[in-house]
Amino acid sequence: MRLAGRVETPYVDSTILQGNYPADPVVRMLPIYLPPSYDHTSSRRFPVIYLLAGHGGSGPFLLARRPWEESVPERIDRLIRSGVMDEVICVLPDCWTVFGGSQYLNSTALGDYESYLSEEIISYVDANYRTVPQASHRAIVGKSSGGYGAMVQSMRHPDLWGAVASHSGDIYFEFGYLPDVATLHANLHRYGGIDRFIEAIPTIKPRVHQPFYSVLGMLCYSAAYSPNPSAHRGFDLPIDSDTGALNGEVWERWLAWDPLRLLNDPCHIDAWRGLSYLYIDCGNWDELNFNVGTRVLAHKLERLGIEADVEFFDDGHLDVSYRLDISLPRLAQAVSQHRP
Amino acid sequence: MRLAGRVETPYVDSTILQGNYPADPVVRMLPIYLPPSYDHTSSRRFPVIYLLAGHGGSGPFLLARRPWEESVPERIDRLIRSGVMDEVICVLPDCWTVFGGSQYLNSTALGDYESYLSEEIISYVDANYRTVPQASHRAIVGKSSGGYGAMVQSMRHPDLWGAVASHSGDIYFEFGYLPDVATLHANLHRYGGIDRFIEAIPTIKPRVHQPFYSVLGMLCYSAAYSPNPSAHRGFDLPIDSDTGALNGEVWERWLAWDPLRLLNDPCHIDAWRGLSYLYIDCGNWDELNFNVGTRVLAHKLERLGIEADVEFFDDGHLDVSYRLDISLPRLAQAVSQHRP
Amino acid sequence: MRLAGRVETPYVDSTILQGNYPADPVVRMLPIYLPPSYDHTSSRRFPVIYLLAGHGGSGPFLLARRPWEESVPERIDRLIRSGVMDEVICVLPDCWTVFGGSQYLNSTALGDYESYLSEEIISYVDANYRTVPQASHRAIVGKSSGGYGAMVQSMRHPDLWGAVASHSGDIYFEFGYLPDVATLHANLHRYGGIDRFIEAIPTIKPRVHQPFYSVLGMLCYSAAYSPNPSAHRGFDLPIDSDTGALNGEVWERWLAWDPLRLLNDPCHIDAWRGLSYLYIDCGNWDELNFNVGTRVLAHKLERLGIEADVEFFDDGHLDVSYRLDISLPRLAQAVSQHRP
Amino acid sequence: MRLAGRVETPYVDSTILQGNYPADPVVRMLPIYLPPSYDHTSSRRFPVIYLLAGHGGSGPFLLARRPWEESVPERIDRLIRSGVMDEVICVLPDCWTVFGGSQYLNSTALGDYESYLSEEIISYVDANYRTVPQASHRAIVGKSSGGYGAMVQSMRHPDLWGAVASHSGDIYFEFGYLPDVATLHANLHRYGGIDRFIEAIPTIKPRVHQPFYSVLGMLCYSAAYSPNPSAHRGFDLPIDSDTGALNGEVWERWLAWDPLRLLNDPCHIDAWRGLSYLYIDCGNWDELNFNVGTRVLAHKLERLGIEADVEFFDDGHLDVSYRLDISLPRLAQAVSQHRP
Repeated sequence: MRLAGRVETPYVDSTILQGNYPADPVVRMLPIYLPPSYDHTSSRRFPVIYLLAGHGGSGPFLLARRPWEESVPERIDRLIRSGVMDEVICVLPDCWTVFGGSQYLNSTALGDYESYLSEEIISYVDANYRTVPQASHRAIVGKSSGGYGAMVQSMRHPDLWGAVASHSGDIYFEFGYLPDVATLHANLHRYGGIDRFIEAIPTIKPRVHQPFYSVLGMLCYSAAYSPNPSAHRGFDLPIDSDTGALNGEVWERWLAWDPLRLLNDPCHIDAWRGLSYLYIDCGNWDELNFNVGTRVLAHKLERLGIEADVEFFDDGHLDVSYRLDISLPRLAQAVSQHRP
Repeated sequence: MRLAGRVETPYVDSTILQGNYPADPVVRMLPIYLPPSYDHTSSRRFPVIYLLAGHGGSGPFLLARRPWEESVPERIDRLIRSGVMDEVICVLPDCWTVFGGSQYLNSTALGDYESYLSEEIISYVDANYRTVPQASHRAIVGKSSGGYGAMVQSMRHPDLWGAVASHSGDIYFEFGYLPDVATLHANLHRYGGIDRFIEAIPTIKPRVHQPFYSVLGMLCYSAAYSPNPSAHRGFDLPIDSDTGALNGEVWERWLAWDPLRLLNDPCHIDAWRGLSYLYIDCGNWDELNFNVGTRVLAHKLERLGIEADVEFFDDGHLDVSYRLDISLPRLAQAVSQHRP
Repeated sequence: MRLAGRVETPYVDSTILQGNYPADPVVRMLPIYLPPSYDHTSSRRFPVIYLLAGHGGSGPFLLARRPWEESVPERIDRLIRSGVMDEVICVLPDCWTVFGGSQYLNSTALGDYESYLSEEIISYVDANYRTVPQASHRAIVGKSSGGYGAMVQSMRHPDLWGAVASHSGDIYFEFGYLPDVATLHANLHRYGGIDRFIEAIPTIKPRVHQPFYSVLGMLCYSAAYSPNPSAHRGFDLPIDSDTGALNGEVWERWLAWDPLRLLNDPCHIDAWRGLSYLYIDCGNWDELNFNVGTRVLAHKLERLGIEADVEFFDDGHLDVSYRLDISLPRLAQAVSQHRP
Repeated sequence: MRLAGRVETPYVDSTILQGNYPADPVVRMLPIYLPPSYDHTSSRRFPVIYLLAGHGGSGPFLLARRPWEESVPERIDRLIRSGVMDEVICVLPDCWTVFGGSQYLNSTALGDYESYLSEEIISYVDANYRTVPQASHRAIVGKSSGGYGAMVQSMRHPDLWGAVASHSGDIYFEFGYLPDVATLHANLHRYGGIDRFIEAIPTIKPRVHQPFYSVLGMLCYSAAYSPNPSAHRGFDLPIDSDTGALNGEVWERWLAWDPLRLLNDPCHIDAWRGLSYLYIDCGNWDELNFNVGTRVLAHKLERLGIEADVEFFDDGHLDVSYRLDISLPRLAQAVSQHRP
């Protein structure tokens, strides 16, 4: 299907990512969807939605069409064409690493992806496109690790983000991550150790959760939540290297990054209180158990008096991009109001 | 990674596909990879490789990058940049239907995709790009149903194709398809009947072989191999609708399209004898058992004195696009010789 | 739960099995269920039901209790105690081989299990227990390969069997076996060849259908249907040893043993016409596709005017022993009539 | 295979189990293996090994032969006949409940199975068989929950048990149980709630870990570790009934029953120090992650100066009964010394 709008794919040369530990690319494609009116007007400015990919994904991957499915630009284009969504620019950042992602945080073990996103990418977009360059006209949304990024970045940067949507976002690590922590020692052993695993990442088959994505996630989150410049590979694992038992000290460093705990910080609470719109959902059969943490979060939001649309639906963690049909129009509406 | 060459994605408006039975799109994107020298020269003409997607895929889908994997244009670009492959244009046709494909044949139940490919697409490409518009400079390659298409089209149109590669192509239907024929009656019952299945195709989850792709393939191949304008949905199923037992008459119509049987026709034998290059491979653990038929084919080629590179490798049917690194340079070399 | 009746487990020393090709045991336990009245009477004679285990099983295994399930003797005992079933003796023969079974046929590759059952076992039981030693008071029942045995033995020995029940019995080999034939070559290769597979049978894990039971079944049925004293291991495989393609000649020898074809023989038709009761069922989701052949059989019985209860139920091939609650009381009634 | 020894299966009528909460049977079969010399002598007394079944199993189930496998009595008989194991009596208690087991503990929600085993069963055996009725001649062994029972009972009753072996025993609940706790809320929802699940236990298919045995285990361990006479069904779940999040208070009650924590108690340490033999093993690929806790336990035993044979082997949690070939002869030797 031809788009009514169009997609540009400039390559952005990053300063912040230079010298990143895993030597991931510094120059990256930055897909940007421009709505139909963008080319029919010359001075009109548009609000922007930043859409963050989940672990194992990145913005450029979201351009891909799959059988019987729309790509993200096709989805947005349809929503706009059919009139259910206001015209917005949509940015699909690439915060990919060899470990499948970065959790959109700064880490000596991966690179400073939080800064990359909140400084370089936003600056690039506002400088090169006719955006409304204000937090109230800028939204962030994502699924899984992308939902995590949307939640955490909006807590930490209220000056940047005015509306937020998290689909099946990482939360309540005790249930969401610990089952994979429990199998990590055996799985690494199975792959011949951490170094052999990392070297084999691009060729390992099959790419299913247990054990491939399970191990990959554990390494990625270790690098994101418990970096340690003096450790092997630059990060601490949350397990004892000898027995495989939980390393309590490292595990606490992980938990400190759980949205449920981050929301104990008054600054973060204030940040979310200031949002014009907050949307959170999760599937009732989420294979990573994020449904449990999402329910706990819903209760916490209610106690804190933070307004949010929280929805649960009868599906699992995968192949739920159809949920964007719900969040995107609401985000677009939230960031379109009081448009100059 | 930035390409040294580039990709154009024109939309082609088909006459042949107009009024196709399932009402699939008539206007389709036609991705075309142009090699680095294409833009650095103004009159140089290039040989062309047509790459056919497997069942469930289409040319535009092959533009998609996936984690740790190259898209088809990225793969070709790397092969050319690194000097192991001659510069060629590569065309990625879209012969997709709602049933996941067309087997690249003409069918009253699907549309005339053989004519679409061999007439409209080739004409469009030769008219709009600096190709060498001769069979000796035109190759066809594909995987799975795409490999089937490459084999069958090259048998039937020696005037169009000069070199051929089939990866894990459909063959020896007695082993490749019959296991799915055996479960078809029960599977259709499970989905609430053929009409309900067809209506639900875009939303069925999960999309794994049994039962989704198994049923989808059976309907697709019925539509391709045993169309019947007076039958329900326009095609005959290879089973008795009451008991689910094999319908011998319809099954014979399927078998007539098996490359092993097609190669009994002297015209087809001559066509393959005239190729400048023929490459065929299959994984030893092919889940659809095409490895058996490929071995039978290898013996037959030897008996017929048809030269071919036939290779077997230790892998299954899925995620074997790395095999293109072997076939593409050889095809490129075959169609580059005697270039004007 | 204590039985109202009781089980004896004599060991029977076979003459017929002596020198069997795979050197399987000659002395075997023969579990025999005796109903409550057996010990309360001294001259009363009882009809007998012979219950044949499926492939991978044997009579002694059927004594095993499993979680939340009854053993076969417990099931019969409950049916008798609750009054829904007449008192019968039930015999659980052991026709096991290292290949998981024998299809209850005579074979130079396995042993003469048909003779063992119809001569030695029946003689032993009639000689040592107060049976009514006549076909009209003797029934045969089984599941899967046991159902196959019940069907085939009753066709071939009308002098021995008066009533028959087959649950999910092997039938319509084109759909029931061919999918496993298609993967046989690759699977044997995976196991390092037929000899290594056979040596490893007792220790291979996991014991699931693909590939373990699939390969085991193919070898077992080869030994049962296509024995060949001069072949390696004493039997012919239904595939070409080089390509893995179907060996048509051997396959025809298999098909000759398909109940659907056996029922073309007027002697077999007469045998079934003479039964006092015939019961056949199969699950609609039978993973081995025997549901298709069972429907074909139902039509054939109707055409032939052979009376039978044919039932289909919404379940698969495994864990359907609850179906015995339907067949056993009917068999018991059939063989109890005109009891002296 | 005929046994050199023999098995008796008396039915024992329990006083302790009377009125148990789930109304499980009070009269139970107690399989007892008697070694070959038992019947050839009239006054010789034998040491006894009590073998505890895992969750989902019970002593009587261990009599079952399975394809290519020995039953427990056959295994012991072979070990004794071949001379690698001293002659012992072996008792296979039935501590089964509708929840698949009891963890061999006293619980108001299940019944007092610890007392049942340590009082009634031992008394019955010593009263009715020629045992050496002393702790130094009595061993306890088991696999999975049976290994747990062996470890915990030997800590709590040093007056009863002189030698111990645990195969793949439950340990380190943070990794062994918590992954199943995390999915409990969703799984119960899937089954229509706890009451519907419990009613459907006998008929649920398929019986695989996720979700059937996972949920069943969680209910069983709740009933064993966190009974509560005033709670629904008589026990507390370790999750919040609304959100599904971990209930910290209940979880602590579970953890108090973890062998790793029980071994902090000086009485338990003394009990294990007093054993004549202690054997512990676990598979490196244990699907329930008990390998991690077993390694932690090994370190702890070393620190405490408790002698033990601790072994790890390359296998998972299931189908590892062949490990009994290692532990049983050692246990038999330990309890045979100084035999009167």
